[in-house]
Amino acid sequence: MTLTPEQQAEIQEARAETRPTLRVTSEGMEKRLYVAHEVLDHGLVRVIDYMGDDNAITQAARVSYGKGTKHVTNDEGLIRYLMRHWHSTPFEMCEVKFHVKLPVFVARQWIRHRTANVNEYSARYSILDREFYIPAPEHLAAQSTVNNQGRGELLQGEEAQRVLDILRDDATRAYDHYEDMLSQDGQKGLARELARMNLPANVYTQWYWKVDLHNLFHFLRLRADTHAQYEIRAYAEVMCDIVRDWVPLAYGAFEDYRMGGVNLSGKGVEALKRRLAGEVVTQENSGMSKGEWREFEGVWG
Amino acid sequence: MTLTPEQQAEIQEARAETRPTLRVTSEGMEKRLYVAHEVLDHGLVRVIDYMGDDNAITQAARVSYGKGTKHVTNDEGLIRYLMRHWHSTPFEMCEVKFHVKLPVFVARQWIRHRTANVNEYSARYSILDREFYIPAPEHLAAQSTVNNQGRGELLQGEEAQRVLDILRDDATRAYDHYEDMLSQDGQKGLARELARMNLPANVYTQWYWKVDLHNLFHFLRLRADTHAQYEIRAYAEVMCDIVRDWVPLAYGAFEDYRMGGVNLSGKGVEALKRRLAGEVVTQENSGMSKGEWREFEGVWG
Amino acid sequence: MTLTPEQQAEIQEARAETRPTLRVTSEGMEKRLYVAHEVLDHGLVRVIDYMGDDNAITQAARVSYGKGTKHVTNDEGLIRYLMRHWHSTPFEMCEVKFHVKLPVFVARQWIRHRTANVNEYSARYSILDREFYIPAPEHLAAQSTVNNQGRGELLQGEEAQRVLDILRDDATRAYDHYEDMLSQDGQKGLARELARMNLPANVYTQWYWKVDLHNLFHFLRLRADTHAQYEIRAYAEVMCDIVRDWVPLAYGAFEDYRMGGVNLSGKGVEALKRRLAGEVVTQENSGMSKGEWREFEGVWG
Amino acid sequence: MTLTPEQQAEIQEARAETRPTLRVTSEGMEKRLYVAHEVLDHGLVRVIDYMGDDNAITQAARVSYGKGTKHVTNDEGLIRYLMRHWHSTPFEMCEVKFHVKLPVFVARQWIRHRTANVNEYSARYSILDREFYIPAPEHLAAQSTVNNQGRGELLQGEEAQRVLDILRDDATRAYDHYEDMLSQDGQKGLARELARMNLPANVYTQWYWKVDLHNLFHFLRLRADTHAQYEIRAYAEVMCDIVRDWVPLAYGAFEDYRMGGVNLSGKGVEALKRRLAGEVVTQENSGMSKGEWREFEGVWG
Repeated sequence: MTLTPEQQAEIQEARAETRPTLRVTSEGMEKRLYVAHEVLDHGLVRVIDYMGDDNAITQAARVSYGKGTKHVTNDEGLIRYLMRHWHSTPFEMCEVKFHVKLPVFVARQWIRHRTANVNEYSARYSILDREFYIPAPEHLAAQSTVNNQGRGELLQGEEAQRVLDILRDDATRAYDHYEDMLSQDGQKGLARELARMNLPANVYTQWYWKVDLHNLFHFLRLRADTHAQYEIRAYAEVMCDIVRDWVPLAYGAFEDYRMGGVNLSGKGVEALKRRLAGEVVTQENSGMSKGEWREFEGVWG
Repeated sequence: MTLTPEQQAEIQEARAETRPTLRVTSEGMEKRLYVAHEVLDHGLVRVIDYMGDDNAITQAARVSYGKGTKHVTNDEGLIRYLMRHWHSTPFEMCEVKFHVKLPVFVARQWIRHRTANVNEYSARYSILDREFYIPAPEHLAAQSTVNNQGRGELLQGEEAQRVLDILRDDATRAYDHYEDMLSQDGQKGLARELARMNLPANVYTQWYWKVDLHNLFHFLRLRADTHAQYEIRAYAEVMCDIVRDWVPLAYGAFEDYRMGGVNLSGKGVEALKRRLAGEVVTQENSGMSKGEWREFEGVWG
Repeated sequence: MTLTPEQQAEIQEARAETRPTLRVTSEGMEKRLYVAHEVLDHGLVRVIDYMGDDNAITQAARVSYGKGTKHVTNDEGLIRYLMRHWHSTPFEMCEVKFHVKLPVFVARQWIRHRTANVNEYSARYSILDREFYIPAPEHLAAQSTVNNQGRGELLQGEEAQRVLDILRDDATRAYDHYEDMLSQDGQKGLARELARMNLPANVYTQWYWKVDLHNLFHFLRLRADTHAQYEIRAYAEVMCDIVRDWVPLAYGAFEDYRMGGVNLSGKGVEALKRRLAGEVVTQENSGMSKGEWREFEGVWG
Repeated sequence: MTLTPEQQAEIQEARAETRPTLRVTSEGMEKRLYVAHEVLDHGLVRVIDYMGDDNAITQAARVSYGKGTKHVTNDEGLIRYLMRHWHSTPFEMCEVKFHVKLPVFVARQWIRHRTANVNEYSARYSILDREFYIPAPEHLAAQSTVNNQGRGELLQGEEAQRVLDILRDDATRAYDHYEDMLSQDGQKGLARELARMNLPANVYTQWYWKVDLHNLFHFLRLRADTHAQYEIRAYAEVMCDIVRDWVPLAYGAFEDYRMGGVNLSGKGVEALKRRLAGEVVTQENSGMSKGEWREFEGVWG
């Protein structure tokens, strides 16, 4: 992504002047504000506004638990306790608003997270820019042969080239035709709300996306996961870095309990206990299906 | 839309056998169950399941108001009272699940209604069908010259033909290329989650969409409105007919208070009162902006 | 409500020091931050944090409408347009967090607004304070004889005194017994999560309540309305004043279109049009029920 | 709880007559419909309506995954896969509506689950019944000495008796005074919306509560857990039995992955792997805090 000089100037201007506030601030987040973090070939993530910090989480927890938490002197310990026991409401006290530029097919996955506020650029009102996502060669992968929703080996040589040519040519042609249909030069010009239907799913759109920290963690757990499609994961990973700067204690707990954690079924607990007792557990005597066992072995060997 | 013989047989089979239930049933809805209502050129709306009827609404209201509502002997009156006074929770006691087949650009508007449950056909896992929305000539309109998000006159003659040709050709080519990229004939075949990005926004997708009656009314108020884009309105209008059969009293109240109703601002109330008192009210002396006044005159002359 | 000297000192301390921020600030809201606004006899509302201002609303709208809104040069006009046409998402870009101290029976009404984040003081963990809501004489009203959910005339003389005595004595006794049961002096002491069940619904609780501006407006429309119970209205009215300072343009539009506005049914529109045409409309020839007509006359005479 | 003869007759009548429907039915749930399941001393849970069954879950999953799931021939395996991988939307396709009678302090915990629809008996409109929760002796426990929010040993002898006397006497007196204040015999009678504030938190209320299966599982995971307060757990356990009858495959997966499952943090995974490798892991060398280690040892010894 290359920002236009106008956009760079706008960001610099927004970052040039601080205002005094009585609100809590997060130093890590102030450094991120407005800055465009590049994602994919033309995408970006920017923080436009935020509310709260690690302290807002413990403050809310302490209102809930009142004098009962007086003995927990340690903010990190309290935040880890909350995360471990799925206490979600204190994390909801923090809020963040992102500006995101992303391909439409990524936007369609993203929007499935319903507990958030969204204002998207409307192609009913306005004309979309001529920008399309074309995967870099290292992301141009074949269909996985073992996973219906995954990628396998990279495409090579001629096949890779053919795919890139198709994606580029079709996008270019679709956009040319989009402009042709909209044009009011010597013709009426098709309504924008109709013309947009000719554009492919790799065209870029943009939106403001506002969410509380609890729901953001839920989004990141699913979308920064290795099972997520690479293109949305690229956004989630940038956002993980931002959140780490914003609320380092909460992010640390999230990383340990959610991203780095493992959910064991009752059968999985049983199998591990038997192993710890020296028993040899196999798929057959574990009670697990083949699929479960494969995933279990993936973690525990 | 032409259903395949398999699909028709499936619907007939689903409708062939009734089961006994102790639940409330809605006769009007039983007639609708599973039946495919055609929308646009390849789309459809079907009711797959429902819960509750008009009586479930008044029953919930009577739990809330207890003995206090004993004197309201009339179900219609009670439902109209609830609608008039924005009591939303009794309407939430009814639920409906639709199967919808719709173009992606319509799906993108639709999904903005967040308080609903959705399972969409996933183009990560599966291959989309070769079906695209091509507007009928009577819906092929130019950009409105007065409304940024609306349609104006119909396109005519050569321009109309050119647009239809573009939409058809580009969709066909995009789909051909989609298949070419996916093909594992003599090549690895691109991952489905990537290949889909070549498809335009008029390709059809499908989903199950489940929603409570209160939120469905909210959807219908916005999407069956004349300001909604024609293509989503076509779905909303079919759904209005279905809801009328399902909960006739609630739908009647909705039609009178929401669809046929008018919201007046404080300034609008003032202007009408002055008119009723015989005064001549103009934009200038109404305190309204030009836009507000234009809308006010649109209703009141 | 009398704040303790400790609490007053805490507020003064919180207001003593500003920090620099790159975020947008609202001057009106900075003046409100942390300040305790008294409500009822022991209640309070305080703003603890906020995000966004009027400008955040128009900025979001302009992202949605892109170049299409360039011609709307006027922020107030744009905000009024959004409010008039029920465009809710731009208002969701603003967020506010309140600290509220309120009687339990008010909290029970309040919590029905689900789209908000809450952390309430937990009487499972901690011991509630000895504070109860006792209505002022000017709010001690009889059951309405015309409205099942409303108040009628004020209670007078002996009856008023008897009610106040009962409320005070029962609350005092309940709290004494609460303490007796909890006491670990010469006995085990009942679990807090059980002992609390002896406390009446006028005991005060407190919480953090965080909400976006769109949902806050919805809350205020219902709870600052004359049909709302006085005790929750007292909170809503204080919050209206705060919101006016925070986002004056949005609040102005809300006041005109929601608080001061009127919803007319299709039948109501018809009746008014006939009146404007000089016809005499009566309940009988209006198609409205008696209840609807009474409300219609209440506005239009 | 003793149902009145009228209530028993009403339930029998509701269960006497079946209607034909084309919808899917759940045999296990049909047996539950309307039947009052007793909870605590005066509470109850009843199923009033439901929508969907195990099959509705796999059907939704198959729409999402299309032809990609054709090879999963096994419904149980598919449902377990969905549960294991946190695919929540297929479970949202099932909906259930309960009638619940419960003490107010339980209702206050319950209502914190926001993604549900509620119609509660309103004490603004109507007069509450003279029914209060008084714990059975085997639930009358002292405050835990190790857990701020838990119960410890049972109260015994005189202390237990004193507590029961207080709870009964205060509830009785509060209700007598409630009636005295409401009475219009020789006085105006206090407004119901005010009089209710004299009632303690163990008074019974009732509501309709409607929720989808995914959110119901979330509720049950937290509220049927041993850490939940006994009084709400009593409701959750009855509801678990009902859900098992309704959707046996989904409930089985829920039981294995959620109720019987364990969440390990990254540190926990590390500690277990070291143990499996024969190492002795202690709190000190595990990187866990004392609290985390205590919980870890609680599961793994």
